Amino acid sequence: MTANNLQDVLDQAGSTVELLRNSQLGTYIYPVVPSEFTNFRREVKAWQQTAVLFDQSHHMTNLWVSGADALKLFTDTGINSTAVFPVDSAKQFVPVAPDGGVIGDGILFRLAEDEFVYVGRAPVANWLMFQAETGGYAVDVRNDPRSPSRPYGKQVTRDVWRFQIQGPRAWEVIEKVNGGTVEKVKFFRMGTMTIAGEEVRTLRHGMAGAPGLEIWGPYASYDKVREAILDAGAEFGLEPAGARAYSCNTLESGWIPSPLPAIYTGEELRAYREWLPAQGYEATNALAGSFVSSDIEDYYTNPWELGYGSFVKFDHDFIGRDALEAVDPATQRRKVTLAWNADDVAELLASPVRPGPGYQFFDLPNANYGSSNFDSVLDADGTVVGVSMFTGYSANERTALSLATVAPDVPLGAEVTVVWGEPDGGSGKTTVEPHEQFRVRAIVSPTPYAAMARETYQQGWRTSATS
Amino acid sequence: MTANNLQDVLDQAGSTVELLRNSQLGTYIYPVVPSEFTNFRREVKAWQQTAVLFDQSHHMTNLWVSGADALKLFTDTGINSTAVFPVDSAKQFVPVAPDGGVIGDGILFRLAEDEFVYVGRAPVANWLMFQAETGGYAVDVRNDPRSPSRPYGKQVTRDVWRFQIQGPRAWEVIEKVNGGTVEKVKFFRMGTMTIAGEEVRTLRHGMAGAPGLEIWGPYASYDKVREAILDAGAEFGLEPAGARAYSCNTLESGWIPSPLPAIYTGEELRAYREWLPAQGYEATNALAGSFVSSDIEDYYTNPWELGYGSFVKFDHDFIGRDALEAVDPATQRRKVTLAWNADDVAELLASPVRPGPGYQFFDLPNANYGSSNFDSVLDADGTVVGVSMFTGYSANERTALSLATVAPDVPLGAEVTVVWGEPDGGSGKTTVEPHEQFRVRAIVSPTPYAAMARETYQQGWRTSATS
Repeated sequence: MTANNLQDVLDQAGSTVELLRNSQLGTYIYPVVPSEFTNFRREVKAWQQTAVLFDQSHHMTNLWVSGADALKLFTDTGINSTAVFPVDSAKQFVPVAPDGGVIGDGILFRLAEDEFVYVGRAPVANWLMFQAETGGYAVDVRNDPRSPSRPYGKQVTRDVWRFQIQGPRAWEVIEKVNGGTVEKVKFFRMGTMTIAGEEVRTLRHGMAGAPGLEIWGPYASYDKVREAILDAGAEFGLEPAGARAYSCNTLESGWIPSPLPAIYTGEELRAYREWLPAQGYEATNALAGSFVSSDIEDYYTNPWELGYGSFVKFDHDFIGRDALEAVDPATQRRKVTLAWNADDVAELLASPVRPGPGYQFFDLPNANYGSSNFDSVLDADGTVVGVSMFTGYSANERTALSLATVAPDVPLGAEVTVVWGEPDGGSGKTTVEPHEQFRVRAIVSPTPYAAMARETYQQGWRTSATS
Repeated sequence: MTANNLQDVLDQAGSTVELLRNSQLGTYIYPVVPSEFTNFRREVKAWQQTAVLFDQSHHMTNLWVSGADALKLFTDTGINSTAVFPVDSAKQFVPVAPDGGVIGDGILFRLAEDEFVYVGRAPVANWLMFQAETGGYAVDVRNDPRSPSRPYGKQVTRDVWRFQIQGPRAWEVIEKVNGGTVEKVKFFRMGTMTIAGEEVRTLRHGMAGAPGLEIWGPYASYDKVREAILDAGAEFGLEPAGARAYSCNTLESGWIPSPLPAIYTGEELRAYREWLPAQGYEATNALAGSFVSSDIEDYYTNPWELGYGSFVKFDHDFIGRDALEAVDPATQRRKVTLAWNADDVAELLASPVRPGPGYQFFDLPNANYGSSNFDSVLDADGTVVGVSMFTGYSANERTALSLATVAPDVPLGAEVTVVWGEPDGGSGKTTVEPHEQFRVRAIVSPTPYAAMARETYQQGWRTSATS
C-alpha cells in the first residue's frame, strides 16, 4: 500500500511510537559545515574564552512569510504575544497544537511591517504553511528547507547565509569588521552593519553575558563575508566553529532543540496529517532513548516543560489556548541541565574496548542518536521524574551534560539517574547497535549551565525556568 | 620573505621537524564521503560479516601517465620489478629517494600498453611529475588531485569515481549487479563488468580472504552506479561505508597509509624541493606524535620497515637502488600491528571527563591527529624499539589498534609501550590541545590483524613481514 501522506504512514504502521523509534533516517545532522576546522575542544573553548563564528546557514529551515495577514498568521498560531512586536525585532516563536503540545520553536524575525522569516526546524514551518494554505490568510510563503544532510559533493545553496559572532571578544571583532562602532541595540533587536562592503542584517544576540550578533545576507556573498570576519577576528582569537562544536553549544546555553512535534494524535489534526508528506520530518523523525511509552502523547511537551512558560500570553486567541489555560504551571515539569557523573560517563566512554555488547555509543561531543531524544530520568526509587532530551559533552566544563525536563519537586542539586540506551537490546534505528542499558548518576543543575552564563546571560528565551 | 617553493619554506623554517610538527593544516581528512551512513560500528562490522561498499573516489590523487616512456618512468623510479607487468594488471608501486627512504606508495594500474594510472597520496604523484618533467621522458601526464578536504557546499568533481565491493558476500553482490557470472581473475588483475548498463573497469581485490573488486568509471555515472550497487547489495547486507568507517579499515588489513616522504634532505633532491610548491602536501603535512627527533631523517622509513621488502627487485636500475643494496634486510624494523591494552585505552577514552589538561584526544574510530604519525614504541627498559604510525579502533575486534614498525628482535606477543601524546604539553598543531602524555601497553601482533584475515588474506602487498 502506498502511503500518500503522514496519516497513511501512521495508519499503516499501527504504532506511531514503534514507527518513529525504528526510523531509518539516522541521527539529526548539522550539514555542509565541516565537522572541525581545528578541533572541537578548541572551538568550544573559544566561545567561552575569545570569540567564535557559528555558521547556521545550513541546518535550519527558513520560512519567508509576507503579506497583509502575516502578523495575523503568527498571532493565531503562537503562544507569544504579538502586541509588542516592532519591525526589526525578533521573538522565540512557539506554536502549540490544539491540545497544548509544543509543535516546535524557532526565531521569528519581523523584517518589515508585513514581512517575516521563521528560522528553525521543519515542523513549525510545515505547520505555518498548512495554516497559511488552509486558513484563508492573505500571505505569500516561501519555504527554503535546510540543506541536504549528506550533500556528497553536490553544490548546496540557500537563500541566505546566517552566522553568529559570539564570545567575550565578539564585539571587538564586530566593530573591527564593520570599520567602526556598531550600536548595541537591545537583545533580539535588529540593525545593520557593513562587512566587506556589503550591508548585512543583524540581530542582537549574546552568549555567556557577552554581546554578540546574528547576521545574515544573500548566499552569493557567503565566502566573502565569512573570510572578512575570520580575517578581522584573527587578532582576537576568533575561531570558526565546525559542526561538532556547534552541535553541543546548546548544552551550555540551555535550549532544547528537539521536542517531538505534538501532531500525531487528535482528530482535529487529521487534515494536517493528511496534508503532511509521507517522507517528511514528521514521518521519518527518529525517536531515540530509554523512555518508551506505547502512547506517543507521552512524548509531547508543553511550553512550561521546555522553559517557555513566560512566553504564554493569553492576550490573544491562538490554537491551543484553551488547552494551555487549563494547565496549572505550578505542577509542570521544568527545564534543567543534568551534569553527568564523571565516573559513570568514563564507563560509557570506555565501553567500545570492553566486552560486547557494551553500551549505546556515546559520541563526542554530540551523543544524541535520533532527531528527538527521550531518556528516562529516575529518582532514587526508580520512579520516572522526567526525561532527558539532548545529551553531549562540554569541553568547557569537562563534563557530559544533558538538557532535561523534570518534576517540579526535584530540587536543584538533587542526584538523579539517567538511563542511557534503549531497552531490550535497542531499537531498529540505524544509529543503534545491540547494547545494554547503563544507569548514569547526574546532578540536577540550572539552565543555562555554564557558571558564567548562569550569572550574566541575557534574561529572555534561554533563561532558566528555575530562576 | 615570500617562500616560492618547498626549499624556501625549509630554509626559512630552520627546523623541518618543528615546521611539520607545528603545521596548521590539521589532520588527514577523508573528504566528501559522508562521515556515517548508519553508524561506523555497523559499517565496520559489515566488511567482516556481510559486504561493504567503500567509496575511494575522493581522498586519493589520480595521476594519469601515458606515452612511449610511461613504463620506463615507473621502472626508473620504483623498487618494483616491471619485468612482468601485463596490461590489465596492477602493482603496489613504491618509489624511494636516492638515500633509499620511501617517498610513498600507491596502486599503479596498467590500463594499456602505454597507459597507466597511479592512485595514492600526493607525494608519489609529485615525484613522478617531477621526474617526467625533468627526466626527458616521452610521456603525457594528467594530475587529478584529491577532492578538497572541506568542500563546504561547493560542487566537487573528479575524473573517475572509484569504489570497492568487499566482504564475505561481496561476490554475490558483484554477480547480481552484473547480471551474471564475473570471472574471478587473479589478485590485482583487471577486467570489466556491467553496472546499470555501463561497462566499468575492475581490479580483483580481496579482504579477509573473500574475493572483492575495486571498480572505477567516469564521474558522470557516479550516482547511477552507486545506487545500482546499493540496490543489488541490500539483500546481502551490503552497507555503504562512510568516511569514519573507511578510515579505520586499514588497521585490520595492515597497510600504513602515511609514511613521511623522504625528500626533505640531501643535495641531490634540492632541485626537487625547489620544484615543489610552498603550500603543497610536503610543506604543510602535519607530523604528529610522541616520537620527536631533531633530525627529519629519523622519520624516514625504508621499504623493509613498511613491509615492502619483497617488492625490492634489483633486476632493474632505479633511483635509490644503490642505497637499498647496502641495506641488510635482516636488521631492519618490520611492520606489525599493536593491540592496545583495554584498561589503558579506557583511561584515554575517559580523559575528557577527568580533570585537565588530560590526554591527547583519542577520536573514534580514527585517532590520528596528523598526516604522518609517529608515536614512540618502547620496550620494558624504556628504549625506543619502533614507531607507531597509524592508530584507531576496530569495532570488529573491540580493540584499539595501531600499525607500527619495530625492531626485528621484538617478538610477536611481546608487550611494548606506546607513548600517546606529544612531549612538553603538545605541539602547535591545530589538532592538539594542551595535554599530558600517557603510556599505553600493547601486544605486538601480526599484520593483518584480524584473525580471519591472518589465515586467509591474499598473499601479496598486504602480507605480514612476519609470516
